[in-house]
Amino acid sequence: MPHQHFGNADNAITIDLNAITANWRYIDGLSAPTIKTAAVVKSNAYGLGSCEVATALARAGCKLFFVASLNEAIELRTLFRQTGHGDLTIMVFHSFQRGQEADFVAHQLEPVLNDLEQISRWRVYAAKMGIKLPASLHFDTGMNRLGLDADQTDWLIRNKKALNGLKLTYVMSHLVSGELINDPVNVRQLASFNKIHSSFSTIPASIANSAGSLLGSDYHFSMTRPGIALYGIHPLEDLDSPLQPAFEWQARILQIRNAAAGDKVGYGGTYQLDRDSQIATLGVGYADGYRRQLGGMATVSIGGRPAPVIGRVSMDSITVDVTGFNQGSLRTDTASLVHEDYPIEKMANDVGTIPYEIMTGLGHRAERYYRGGG
Amino acid sequence: MPHQHFGNADNAITIDLNAITANWRYIDGLSAPTIKTAAVVKSNAYGLGSCEVATALARAGCKLFFVASLNEAIELRTLFRQTGHGDLTIMVFHSFQRGQEADFVAHQLEPVLNDLEQISRWRVYAAKMGIKLPASLHFDTGMNRLGLDADQTDWLIRNKKALNGLKLTYVMSHLVSGELINDPVNVRQLASFNKIHSSFSTIPASIANSAGSLLGSDYHFSMTRPGIALYGIHPLEDLDSPLQPAFEWQARILQIRNAAAGDKVGYGGTYQLDRDSQIATLGVGYADGYRRQLGGMATVSIGGRPAPVIGRVSMDSITVDVTGFNQGSLRTDTASLVHEDYPIEKMANDVGTIPYEIMTGLGHRAERYYRGGG
Repeated sequence: MPHQHFGNADNAITIDLNAITANWRYIDGLSAPTIKTAAVVKSNAYGLGSCEVATALARAGCKLFFVASLNEAIELRTLFRQTGHGDLTIMVFHSFQRGQEADFVAHQLEPVLNDLEQISRWRVYAAKMGIKLPASLHFDTGMNRLGLDADQTDWLIRNKKALNGLKLTYVMSHLVSGELINDPVNVRQLASFNKIHSSFSTIPASIANSAGSLLGSDYHFSMTRPGIALYGIHPLEDLDSPLQPAFEWQARILQIRNAAAGDKVGYGGTYQLDRDSQIATLGVGYADGYRRQLGGMATVSIGGRPAPVIGRVSMDSITVDVTGFNQGSLRTDTASLVHEDYPIEKMANDVGTIPYEIMTGLGHRAERYYRGGG
Repeated sequence: MPHQHFGNADNAITIDLNAITANWRYIDGLSAPTIKTAAVVKSNAYGLGSCEVATALARAGCKLFFVASLNEAIELRTLFRQTGHGDLTIMVFHSFQRGQEADFVAHQLEPVLNDLEQISRWRVYAAKMGIKLPASLHFDTGMNRLGLDADQTDWLIRNKKALNGLKLTYVMSHLVSGELINDPVNVRQLASFNKIHSSFSTIPASIANSAGSLLGSDYHFSMTRPGIALYGIHPLEDLDSPLQPAFEWQARILQIRNAAAGDKVGYGGTYQLDRDSQIATLGVGYADGYRRQLGGMATVSIGGRPAPVIGRVSMDSITVDVTGFNQGSLRTDTASLVHEDYPIEKMANDVGTIPYEIMTGLGHRAERYYRGGG
């Protein structure tokens, strides 16, 4: 890949919007045609760019989008209005916070109401505006994170008039361990949710995140809401994943140097060369989301050959061992930071985390390119 | 702190520009008055905002700024031109890459030349333009990352005419272990650098990063270039640091819930409550740079009381134990994510990294406020 690929930056992320829409269609195809498939584009579409991703998914036919917070929602609504998708639905997982009611209405946002107080405040605001305001209800079935707890749920079932004035679009819950197919907590959560739903049977229901979409039709209800699967990561770590990788990450080779056996490399001199070596310094560091712990663990790929990362990862650069590599390749190639021998799943595992955290940690200094999505 | 502090976001970072300028003045005061003190503002000023930080430092009298790459340099030059600081010097650690020569000239940028090829290309470009182009020379004395290696250095000393046509502002090197006062590598690097400098004695010299500034006058030469110390982190981990903390990080309390002894919390149900508990869910997650490994380790401070983070850190939220906390405080307060009992040094240490990586990983979804700097 030629150097101009990086623009004025030293590393670049290339996002394949066609892969993301293909992944969305794949998840959509797992559930019955009448069941809606939403898209979770919070956290800047898991680091890949919510505006570009949401536009591509809207063109692919997605009608319902989830974000976490009001600032994410306003950004998305503004985009949709500018691109002729103003009628699409945006739901906000964190609901409205006190004082945000007017913004939710002005930007046509649907809060996911998480407790009785939010329900009450949304009702009061609807009454004040003289309109039925849309919202969904989130019942907690085991996360203890967001959503009505068991006592509040019981109260609401006995006091349904507390929902008057609201246009309820979904009742929802969220899986604790959906990625573990055989975890009994899935079946327990499903049973709890079915019981709650039976008290609100006229309202469509949804419990399936990406993992839930893959757990089978019992989990699909009226709407699935995949996130990570859209971005090419199989939540069940299926080695034979039908999902398409959604991004590449490359760094510029800043300098090639020779160093002698016995020389040390990088901060702290933690790595000592055991032979005369050639070292390439690459324009990516932990400030770009290339985790500091990867020094001594990761490889990059240059000209199709893996090069081990040696020494500590710096803020803006890393050093890799390219001894014996083709010199022409070193002058013209770039380095792939995730590659066949070192996929993002392995990178995440090596630093004790999950691909989600690596992706949402991708830096803002990289040049970003988008392919497809038209 | 009132909720409107967060704007439309769910967490907020407040940067104290007066602390940053005070830290710059402190470092500046360590060296003789004739010695220039630069400011390293690469990686978005270590995550705190390069535009705001550089403007404040320019007003405080800083004349020389370092960034890593061309895109960072152009952003800074554009800012400086808009704010009446167009004459300040911007130096680029990664030098120019092939094809970037014209941009360096157009934006008045000084490359830190890292090898003979870059020196040659810069000379050729200077000749083509018919002007003397400014640059500094980086000699490697042990990092094996960037800079002329020993062979190239020897060649250049014997062939100084290879520098004709360039206006050399500094000869530089970079410390491997400056933060370890007694590491013999410091003295060795200093000796190597003095030897190299003796061959270029008419050119001002610089080797001191933040740690070097603190190592004493032998390391100051004609210019020091602190980075991390400006942002309040003492590179030597001095417990009695004279540096002022430069930022606060707070999250909104999204929801308070009661949960029973035996209940589990968060993804994977990894945390089980051993008593009836009250849980606060906060609007910050690993997508905001609040590292996923912090679950079960960190505390936040609410109303001056530390609350342990329980269960796994989610992408957009965390759950903390607030059992027995003042209920009024829970309704009106926010949560401080770094606080007296849990400073950033401890947060970084708990996840096996250094404060630099936590800071450069601070997310873009947070609302950012700037105090001072006028």
